[in-house]
Amino acid sequence: MQAQFLTLDGIDGSGKSTHLETMREWFERRGMPVLFTREPGGTPLGEELRRLLLSPDSRVGLRTETLLMFAARRQHLEDVILPALDKGIHVVSDRFTDATFAYQGGGRGIPAADIEVLENWVQGSLRPNLTLLLDVPLEVSFERIARSREKDRFEQEEAEFFARVRRAYLDRAAAHPQRYRVIDSNRSREEVRAAVEAALQAHFEAV
Amino acid sequence: MQAQFLTLDGIDGSGKSTHLETMREWFERRGMPVLFTREPGGTPLGEELRRLLLSPDSRVGLRTETLLMFAARRQHLEDVILPALDKGIHVVSDRFTDATFAYQGGGRGIPAADIEVLENWVQGSLRPNLTLLLDVPLEVSFERIARSREKDRFEQEEAEFFARVRRAYLDRAAAHPQRYRVIDSNRSREEVRAAVEAALQAHFEAV
Repeated sequence: MQAQFLTLDGIDGSGKSTHLETMREWFERRGMPVLFTREPGGTPLGEELRRLLLSPDSRVGLRTETLLMFAARRQHLEDVILPALDKGIHVVSDRFTDATFAYQGGGRGIPAADIEVLENWVQGSLRPNLTLLLDVPLEVSFERIARSREKDRFEQEEAEFFARVRRAYLDRAAAHPQRYRVIDSNRSREEVRAAVEAALQAHFEAV
Repeated sequence: MQAQFLTLDGIDGSGKSTHLETMREWFERRGMPVLFTREPGGTPLGEELRRLLLSPDSRVGLRTETLLMFAARRQHLEDVILPALDKGIHVVSDRFTDATFAYQGGGRGIPAADIEVLENWVQGSLRPNLTLLLDVPLEVSFERIARSREKDRFEQEEAEFFARVRRAYLDRAAAHPQRYRVIDSNRSREEVRAAVEAALQAHFEAV
């Protein structure tokens, strides 16, 4: 089996952090080599750009932000993701290009066609083998965010924005059904965990 | 007359710093409002990226570097260049997109067609109204660099690299003759200064 490139995505408060752990344990129990990484971030350059972009007083424009996201992504691919896959290590990225389509695209208005130009420029034909999309209604997302942490710049934006982001994620999943598994995250942690594990199981049985 | 967007470009050691001063004095003598800026740099984000890219231990890959250049350029356009032009202030940029075609393209091998994709993504149809390209043989460039300053990462690269960069600049000038004036900078400072002034004079008489 070729090493698999998996991504976990979803709006803030969709349960990503919790179910990254689900994924980690799933791989560990099977003794399968796996690398967990995240975007934006994942490299020293990426972490520097992440800090810059998430700062509440960031004055970076939308198109600049999108280019910086893809610059960080390129370095992340070259330094982290591709070398691991080449060595036969599976990779799980907490967010990837789908997040750009959702946040900078659906949320903030960059046309999807413009994002596709950069996706091809940076990734060539590389796409994740499987993307798990955790989906929750906005009310649930907001309640979880309010409970759990400080708001950063993205989280200060309003409900309408997050509604567009969620819609963009779901639209992408609908457009690429062979690559996406949409997981209803508006359930108990145990139920979502079971759904994540089932999606991993099905994927690795098929490849 | 619409405010004009001018750029000054050329390999390291071609005399750019000296003849930015020539340009500055030319505008000053005429009392014409003008803003001088530079790439990479020109904004706080740009200066941060400039520092990152020029650091001798930068480990940023070539495609990442190209994306960062265009990210900085986008912010530079939004925050500095376009607002000035909108107010009727002429703008002179020390380097612009031609430098990406020359260094990342000709010098390091990114296909010009790939750079054009990003140029259009970032600039739309905006191009400089006039680009002065200072051209010198490599030996002259090296001698000037050795005399004048510390080497940064780009300047450590070898003669072959700079030969490709110079060729890429000249090719672009040949492909867009209406926008470029190639100025032979392998002459006395006074002769080059006269040529720069003549090019400015001719341009502003024509617009």
